[in-house]
Amino acid sequence: MELNFTILIELLGTFAFAISGIRLASGKHIDWFGAYIIGLVTAIGGGTMRDLLLDVTPFWILDSKYFITTGVALIATLLFKDKLFKWGSTLFLFDTIGLGLFTIVGITLSINAGLPLWVCIVMGTITGTVGGVVRDVLLNEVPLIFRKDIYALACVAGGGIYFACSYFNLPTDITEIIAASTVIVLRLVAVKFHLHLPQLQALNNKSKDN
Amino acid sequence: MELNFTILIELLGTFAFAISGIRLASGKHIDWFGAYIIGLVTAIGGGTMRDLLLDVTPFWILDSKYFITTGVALIATLLFKDKLFKWGSTLFLFDTIGLGLFTIVGITLSINAGLPLWVCIVMGTITGTVGGVVRDVLLNEVPLIFRKDIYALACVAGGGIYFACSYFNLPTDITEIIAASTVIVLRLVAVKFHLHLPQLQALNNKSKDN
Amino acid sequence: MELNFTILIELLGTFAFAISGIRLASGKHIDWFGAYIIGLVTAIGGGTMRDLLLDVTPFWILDSKYFITTGVALIATLLFKDKLFKWGSTLFLFDTIGLGLFTIVGITLSINAGLPLWVCIVMGTITGTVGGVVRDVLLNEVPLIFRKDIYALACVAGGGIYFACSYFNLPTDITEIIAASTVIVLRLVAVKFHLHLPQLQALNNKSKDN
Repeated sequence: MELNFTILIELLGTFAFAISGIRLASGKHIDWFGAYIIGLVTAIGGGTMRDLLLDVTPFWILDSKYFITTGVALIATLLFKDKLFKWGSTLFLFDTIGLGLFTIVGITLSINAGLPLWVCIVMGTITGTVGGVVRDVLLNEVPLIFRKDIYALACVAGGGIYFACSYFNLPTDITEIIAASTVIVLRLVAVKFHLHLPQLQALNNKSKDN
Repeated sequence: MELNFTILIELLGTFAFAISGIRLASGKHIDWFGAYIIGLVTAIGGGTMRDLLLDVTPFWILDSKYFITTGVALIATLLFKDKLFKWGSTLFLFDTIGLGLFTIVGITLSINAGLPLWVCIVMGTITGTVGGVVRDVLLNEVPLIFRKDIYALACVAGGGIYFACSYFNLPTDITEIIAASTVIVLRLVAVKFHLHLPQLQALNNKSKDN
Repeated sequence: MELNFTILIELLGTFAFAISGIRLASGKHIDWFGAYIIGLVTAIGGGTMRDLLLDVTPFWILDSKYFITTGVALIATLLFKDKLFKWGSTLFLFDTIGLGLFTIVGITLSINAGLPLWVCIVMGTITGTVGGVVRDVLLNEVPLIFRKDIYALACVAGGGIYFACSYFNLPTDITEIIAASTVIVLRLVAVKFHLHLPQLQALNNKSKDN
């Protein structure tokens, strides 16, 4: 992928992740600064957890653009809040593209750190999903990704495809594009057709029948 | 302790911790993948927090058996959910043995890192308990260990016994077995006889009387 | 600042932070040990998060006084619970002084680590606020700092003043005192005059009108 294009996608993904945090924070008696923090941890939480586990400097320490992008997301929310809903599907697309890109970033960094294949997939999934988990914990809700749609599983599948492509010696660029597209398409298809995994039944109620 | 025996106990402990996460996740509109993640963080959360604080590579990055064991725990839950309740006391025993073993693992790693005695006890307790705390936070509940029974305190007591044994120059093997047994027996006795610490009264209500 | 004076303030800040955790834990069916842990994470959570992000040894591993101070705070709460409310404004003052001091500690450590200005302010704010966020998450509430008063913003402002003073080449001692005072005064004024940022309106309800 060409450099400038990657950065553009990464900023759009950060923007969309931040907006998703700010939107969920709205109507919960949270002030502007709190909304900024929720948006920020949604956008950088996954990568920060990955960097802590890999024992490298958290990526945002080296570059202020993630904090600035989140600020832009907050201002955009305050200025255009009515319009944000008309943009809903565009934002969902950014969010999904961000998910795909973040997953690949996590995988690539883990490969460079010399980690085994399955750990790379775990790190990609962590990069894509942990921000949303922290967002939901801070807003006092059971994390959405445990409950709905295909989300983390799309990251895992994208990771699997990544290594399948590597196995067949595809060039890195192509591999990254195919893997990111897998995450994105799986997520779009899952949301469009309401695909989701079965839920775990209440084991405790079940036991009363015995 | 002989190597294979330790690994067996560790896997049983991981299995029991994972099951405890999956069971608590059931009936909360959480899908299979979410249940797997909750089971996983219950099993590996404490050791991961310890390794982050000690600034070493998280233990599960080096060995996939924890992820696999959690997968087995999920499959076992789905296949045998009715029977899991008949196995309840067996699982509780595994869980308690796991608590004792995890505590000792945390203490031993901290001693090897050259930490002071009281930090080793803290790290042992963190290894044994933080997984359950993260599980409860993700499921949007006040962590159980703050509320009920003797749990973390059993880890602290086991840690104290560990260093008492070391003080008297007992061999490491014997010290580990005695300390782990202390954790296990204290926990079993506390649950059997409903021993628990007093709860903290509501300070705010009290103040209204003044 | 003279060394002994700084340590005294730090212990008072730790004590006040621990008390704030223990008070919030009261009346939530939490036992004494749980209250101790909640008090402890309130007091050391911010500095621990900062040290994990900076990849240095968590500060409390090197010094047991934070654990001991929290123990004193628990005992004081149990012994003097009725009186604690008469001391309410004194404790609030400690808490605010602690916030100011913790923020400056975070900034100073980050400067020594060679981090850019804006990262130092972020680390100061993290040091001052994350303990309270973890406390609220463990007690299953939306973190207070997202909802009320000027709190994290006072840390950010104090950080800005710190670097303004540095820019004018004020001596480090004077800079630290001015910056800490900024945090403290802003917080006191905000609470006294009920100053707070606007809250984010419910975006979802808004959308129904469209």
